[in-house]
This record gives sequence, C-alpha cells and structure tokens, in this order.
Amino acid sequence: MNGTTTFSTATPITVLGLGNLGSALAGALLDRGHPTTVWNRTAGRADPLVARGARRATTVAEAVAASPLVVVCVLDYDAASALLAPAADVLADRTLVNITSGTPEPVRELAAWATGHGARYLDGAVYAVPQTIGTPEAFVLYSGSREAFDATRGVLDPALGAGTLVGTDPTLASVQDMAVLSAMYGLFGGFFHSLALARTAGITAADITVPLVRWLTSAVATLPDFARDIDSGDYTTDTSTIDINRAGLAAILTAGRERGLDDRLLAPVLDLYERQAAQGHGTSSMARAFESLDALDSLAGGKGSAVA
Amino acid sequence: MNGTTTFSTATPITVLGLGNLGSALAGALLDRGHPTTVWNRTAGRADPLVARGARRATTVAEAVAASPLVVVCVLDYDAASALLAPAADVLADRTLVNITSGTPEPVRELAAWATGHGARYLDGAVYAVPQTIGTPEAFVLYSGSREAFDATRGVLDPALGAGTLVGTDPTLASVQDMAVLSAMYGLFGGFFHSLALARTAGITAADITVPLVRWLTSAVATLPDFARDIDSGDYTTDTSTIDINRAGLAAILTAGRERGLDDRLLAPVLDLYERQAAQGHGTSSMARAFESLDALDSLAGGKGSAVA
Ligand SMILES: NC(=O)c1ccc[n+]([C@@H]2O[C@H](COP(=O)([O-])OP(=O)(O)OC[C@H]3O[C@@H](n4cnc5c(N)ncnc54)[C@H](OP(=O)(O)O)[C@@H]3O)[C@@H](O)[C@H]2O)c1
Ligand SMILES: NC(=O)c1ccc[n+]([C@@H]2O[C@H](COP(=O)([O-])OP(=O)(O)OC[C@H]3O[C@@H](n4cnc5c(N)ncnc54)[C@H](OP(=O)(O)O)[C@@H]3O)[C@@H](O)[C@H]2O)c1
Repeated sequence: MNGTTTFSTATPITVLGLGNLGSALAGALLDRGHPTTVWNRTAGRADPLVARGARRATTVAEAVAASPLVVVCVLDYDAASALLAPAADVLADRTLVNITSGTPEPVRELAAWATGHGARYLDGAVYAVPQTIGTPEAFVLYSGSREAFDATRGVLDPALGAGTLVGTDPTLASVQDMAVLSAMYGLFGGFFHSLALARTAGITAADITVPLVRWLTSAVATLPDFARDIDSGDYTTDTSTIDINRAGLAAILTAGRERGLDDRLLAPVLDLYERQAAQGHGTSSMARAFESLDALDSLAGGKGSAVA
Repeated sequence: MNGTTTFSTATPITVLGLGNLGSALAGALLDRGHPTTVWNRTAGRADPLVARGARRATTVAEAVAASPLVVVCVLDYDAASALLAPAADVLADRTLVNITSGTPEPVRELAAWATGHGARYLDGAVYAVPQTIGTPEAFVLYSGSREAFDATRGVLDPALGAGTLVGTDPTLASVQDMAVLSAMYGLFGGFFHSLALARTAGITAADITVPLVRWLTSAVATLPDFARDIDSGDYTTDTSTIDINRAGLAAILTAGRERGLDDRLLAPVLDLYERQAAQGHGTSSMARAFESLDALDSLAGGKGSAVA
C-alpha cells in the first residue's frame, strides 16, 4: 500500500461494531459488492449480514488483518480503544476510519495510538440515521489523514454519505460534531415540551408535528442570519427582537405551568432573553441572547453553590 | 355586511400596530392595492407607510371605523385589549383578525369581548418573519369565526400566508402556536450552545452554521417518526436509542464544561434520557425521553421546594 492507493468496490472492508449504524453501513457495503468482514462483541448481531454474504471474524485482530480499510462504529471511544488494543500489531498500513461519536480528547489519544502503530487515522462524524445512510441527504465531516480521506472517497461517499475533510487535526470533526449535535438536542428538548403542551389540549403528537415541522424547517433556514448578527456583533434588527421573544416565551411557559407542565427545558432559554432585556437590549436582534451565555459562565459557580 | 361577504383587493383594511410584523403586513396590503388605514401607538412609525399611500388614523376608534376588516398586531394581548377598548362602539359588523401572539386565556377573553360588541373574531398564529410574509413559505393557523375565515382568505392568504382554520374555538390556534414555538425555542437554546462551543474552538458562527443547518433540516424531517413512536407508545427502534443519545449528549456536556461552558441549556435534556435509562429503557427509541416529562411533573413540587 502506498500514498497514492485509492480504494474501489474490489477493496475488502472490515466493519467493527454492528449496532444500528454499523449494521446499516456493512449492509450498504455488501450491496455495493465489497468483500466485507464483520465483527461485533455480541457475535449473533452479525448473523443477518453473514446471511447476506459477509465474512464473520471471531477476533478483532483477525477482522483488522482481513482488510486494508477498517471502519469502527461502536458506542463510544472507551469501547473503540479497548476493542482495538489487541489488534495493535496488525494495524500497520491499515486505513482506520472511526465513525464512533466522541469528544476531542479521546479522539486525539486514539488517533495518536493508531498512527503510532502505522495506521492512517481518519475520524468521521456521520450525519445520517441508519435508514438514510448512503442517500443524498447523508453527509460526513472527517478530520485526520488527508491521504486516508482521499483514498476512501470512492468507497465511503456512496456507502455512507458525501464526505468533507474539515482539517488534518483529527479532533476537528469531533469539535464540529459536538456543536452541531448541541443544536439538535436543544431541538429535541423543545420538541418534547411541544408534545407535552399539545397533549394537555388533547392534540396528538402526529397532529402538532405537522405545523411544527413546517415552521421549524423555516426557522432552521433563518439560523445563518442570526449567525451573521453574532459574528458581526451588530444586533440591530427589523425581524425579531429580544422583547418580542421574551414576551412570547414567558407566556408559553406560564401557560404550560398552568397546565401542570414543568418548564425546566425552556426556562434557561427565557433566562437568556431576560438577561439581555435587563441590560437594555430589548429592541436588539433576538440573536443577542447568545451574549447571555458569557454571563451564565461567570455565574455558574455562584449559582451552583447556592443551590447545593 | 352579511354572512356571505368576502373581501377583495377593493376592501379597505385597517392595521393596528406597526411593529416589524404589522409594518410588513401593511406594506404588503398597500402593494396589493388595498385602501389601507394604519395606526400605531408611536405615531411616527406610520410615516414610511403613509409615504407609500396609507391613511393615518389618529385614534384606534377612527382606524376601526375606517374599514370592515381590522388586523391587530401588537406586543401582547394586554396591549391588544387595552388599545381596542375605546373602539368598542364601532366594532359592530367588523371582522377583527388578531395576529398578536398570546396564550389561550386572554384570547378567550378578547374573543368574547369582541363578539359581544358585534364583531366577528378570528385569531391567527403567523408562521413567518416580516421578510417572508406573503411568500409560499409563510403560513397562518387561525381559530374562531368560520365566516371571518372564509371572508378573509382572498385577502390574507396572499398578503400574509396560506391560512388554515384549525377550529372555531378561538383559543385553538394559540394552543397550537405555543406548542410549535416551544420546539423553536428549544432549537434556539441549543443553537446558542452550539455557537458557544464552536467559539471555544475558534470556529465562527457562520462556519458552524453550515453543517448545522444541513443536519437540522434532516433532523426536523425525522420528528414525525418520533411523534409516531410517542402516539403509539411503541418504542422499539432500529434507528437511535436512549443509550446512544445519552452517551453522546453526556460527552458533549462534559467536553463543554471542560471548555468553561455552562451546561444549563442542555442538562435538562440529558436528564430526560437518563431517567429512561435508569428505568431500563436504554435500548428503546430515543423518543421515549418524552415519557420522562411526566416524571418531571410529579417531581417539580418537591424539587422546587428543596431549592427555594
Ligand atoms: N444511530 C445513528 O443514527 C447514529 C448516527 C450518527 C452517529 N452514530 C454513532 O455511531 C455509534 C454507534 O451508534 P449505533 O446507533 O450503531 O449504536 P447501537 O445500535 O446502540 O450499537 C452500539 C454498538 O456498540 C457496541 N459496543 C458497546 N459497548 C462496547 C464495548 N465495550 N466493546 C465493544 N463493542 C461495544 C455494541 O455491541 P453489542 O452488540 O455487543 O452490544 C454495538 O455494536 C455511536 O457512537 C453513535 O453516536 C449513530
Ligand atoms: N416579528 C416576527 O417575526 C413575528 C412573527 C410571528 C408573530 N409575531 C407576533 O406579532 C406581534 C408583533 O410582533 P412585532 O415583531 O411586530 O413586534 P415589534 O416590532 O416589537 O412591535 C411591537 C408593536 O406593539 C406595539 N405596542 C407595544 N405595547 C403596546 C401598548 N401597550 N399599546 C399599544 N401598542 C403597543 C408597539 O408600538 P410602539 O411602536 O408604540 O412601541 C409596536 O407597534 C407579537 O405578538 C409577535 O409575537 C411576530
């Protein structure tokens, strides 16, 4: 194997970890004709893939030895590091693509360890669910070895999703991933509050989700405008002010409490608007709420100890 | 005016409240050729509209008397009720469309008051920003008088956004609106956390918003699947489990704290996943986190008093 090698559908590929995402990826590779070797801690989970033509490896070392390209997809980095340890001796010249989700520190460690054993390391943050991998909607942010990135495009773009290399520091994809997923979890929290509020009025989740999806699709599309306000620090607006959002959200939380609903999912968001209003920024862009996070930081210690 | 009257571009229309949204609506009505009367508490805000051909009313009563169709768009229901009070005597046979955001109780009161004075009352929740009103993206949920809804379609659909009557109980649009906006505020809270996390790594808001918008557009589209899980109570999944999301979000919050970031926006969301995992539902659909809200409700009293 040398620096100019690129992989093709003839390339044997190993998938370590056959949970929802790993199984979907292994299935996609089989569909595309790759000789595919699979391994999973709970061996039975490989059965459906073996039935479709995958080769089952009984140890991780055997699985890694079987293919020049190895993809890892397990619960977390502790699991990924632990399962790879016994395969250290067969890592040389392997391209290791880790699509397990993780935070920067363990990514850095695993990348250094794998590189130290002669592997090319590429870290990937996958934006897809098992049902959408390999579709035009799916995409992947990678960081790490450019050589590995270039070599794997022809194989992983179609099977997983269109890839972008965000940088050669292997932790960069993880940093961006944490930021992207933070917004998703905020969305999920708000969504659960939505459904609970709708339920108090006898409206089903399915029914309220119709206008909700329609409006949130628009709301997501306006985030770049707020990002522009925040990067520039210019919060003049003729769109939507701190005051209007503060009044609206306060009313929502009050009405929710009157219906017996806990407000802890959204009260911290209201607090961001209230801090800006208290500082005289009521007519600023509602994006100015972002600036309240600094205030939250410096207050965190005091607040925490008051409560404890 | 009788029950079969429908309005047209020849219909004089009054807009009360010329903030960002009211001004945009009045401008759209002028663009479409309506004789438009405007009123705003701070009179100077009408100047640009008067320059474009609007008629300025000096009192609300004069403004209401000027048109069979009156649209109200101010900060909140207290403001809407207070400003309409002096116009009680000229409300008879008027169609009053209130697109001020509010909660069900004050909507019910204002609707009863207006109907008592002979008006047809329609309550509207607008899903648009000033820049998108009247575009195909914009839509409006209405509740209240069906007659008013039918009469105003030809005028308000093009100027404001495509309307749906969700019911004749005037509070229904408000209930749905609170639910829809809850999800939006959760999204905004998560978005601010995202940007703060990105900033700790030197990534601009604009840069992180690119993958963020792309992924959230997909995530929003998957909400109906979660809604189905929740309505059915069947949380088996091959997509995304409680455990995977709990591990992912916990890692994000830990990494954020290590970077000095307060976690209070997202810690309550993690808590929903943790409660489900603690009850043995780690392999269930991540939508099962919704069920944790009941637990939060029953705990709210005890927790609140412990902190106070
Ligand atoms: N599902 C998605 O939509 C999605 C999307 C993007 C990213 N991801 C990321 O992809 C990774 C896998 O997600 P998933 O949905 O496939 O998870 P999953 O269905 O819960 O599967 C978890 C996998 O991790 C394995 N595992 C757990 N602990 C292990 C250990 N100590 N040693 C070895 N293997 C271990 C499990 O093996 P057993 O079968 O033996 O338990 C299983 O193969 C996660 O990091 C997740 O955040 C998932
Ligand atoms: N902006 C949006 O994107 C949007 C979208 C959907 C719904 N809405 C809803 O539409 C309503 C108006 O929003 P906006 O963005 O246009 O707000 P805005 O730009 O802040 O304007 C607020 C308006 O309310 C008036 N007002 C406030 N208190 C008043 C009082 N006590 N008496 C009389 N008038 C009073 C203001 O008059 P002055 O000029 O005299 O202060 C101004 O005309 C809100 O309920 C909002 O939630 C807005």
